[in-house]
Amino acid sequence: MNRDKALQIVKQQLTDHRYTHTIGVMETAIELASRYGGDPKKAELAAIFHDYAKFRPKEEMKQIIVTQKMDPALLLYNTELWHAPVGTYLVREEVGITDEEVLNAIKYHTSGRPNMTLLEKIIYVADYIEPGRHFPGVEDVRELAKNDLDSALIQSLKNTIVFLLKKNQAVYPDTMMTYNSLVLGGK
Amino acid sequence: MNRDKALQIVKQQLTDHRYTHTIGVMETAIELASRYGGDPKKAELAAIFHDYAKFRPKEEMKQIIVTQKMDPALLLYNTELWHAPVGTYLVREEVGITDEEVLNAIKYHTSGRPNMTLLEKIIYVADYIEPGRHFPGVEDVRELAKNDLDSALIQSLKNTIVFLLKKNQAVYPDTMMTYNSLVLGGK
Repeated sequence: MNRDKALQIVKQQLTDHRYTHTIGVMETAIELASRYGGDPKKAELAAIFHDYAKFRPKEEMKQIIVTQKMDPALLLYNTELWHAPVGTYLVREEVGITDEEVLNAIKYHTSGRPNMTLLEKIIYVADYIEPGRHFPGVEDVRELAKNDLDSALIQSLKNTIVFLLKKNQAVYPDTMMTYNSLVLGGK
Repeated sequence: MNRDKALQIVKQQLTDHRYTHTIGVMETAIELASRYGGDPKKAELAAIFHDYAKFRPKEEMKQIIVTQKMDPALLLYNTELWHAPVGTYLVREEVGITDEEVLNAIKYHTSGRPNMTLLEKIIYVADYIEPGRHFPGVEDVRELAKNDLDSALIQSLKNTIVFLLKKNQAVYPDTMMTYNSLVLGGK
């Protein structure tokens, strides 16, 4: 699918603000793919559709998690996690994307997972550092992403975990395990 | 076993500094037990023996973890976690303590675990706040422990997790899940 067609499809699913964010993620993901030897076309496609399900009603997302037998723990944790795996399902069903690498990059763009692929890391970090993001710590991750994708990923995971702890919110186990796998893996 | 006998046994296993810490944990644990309706004799016994294995050689601890079929993930994470489950084993074998509640309070005093018992919480928090402890954040936990043991526990877990993240160290999954179970449980 070409970029214009993909953007046209996703635009209908998003607010203007979120569409602008998506463009930022797309541009950043392509840049990271070129920097780290990833596939720029897959990075583009995954980035464009990463937030496809963001504005679906919570009830619809919940039902998809249950009927598609996704991790039931998702329902216990922050609802912000839901749009990623649900997005993978909807992008396959409604848009017809079947590339598993692209679908997994969408699926794990919020939680992460241990042993992420390069494309998954690119989308996770691009989502975190795209130019429209402004929050404490983002500049550090942007700097790290210039030279070392894993360090950028580790720092963004740390920021996310500390952010959740400060708000007394639960941390999805896979997010913690993503961080653990990276620091235990020696990088 | 009476206090004097127990202290006499544990003194031989510890440095002077760690023995003083143990006395602090004992006094704090008895105080917390009286404040929160716990069993002060069990709190005393668990506190006295909580660091029993602290100075065993790493190789001995590792061997016990393997031969006693303890969680193999322990070996991947910080060696500081090992003395707690290993201590439970040694206190049973060498000292003859068989009270499961006391043994579990020793076992989980460093990692925590989801759905901790009152005695486990008391030992965990007493170990964290005993008067000899001086590190950033300890005073906040001391204050919380005056009125709300769960809040003190949550705060100490948060401090520990943030401390590990700052050092780029892995967080033992049960520690994260202890925190999650407390905040997801509505407390």
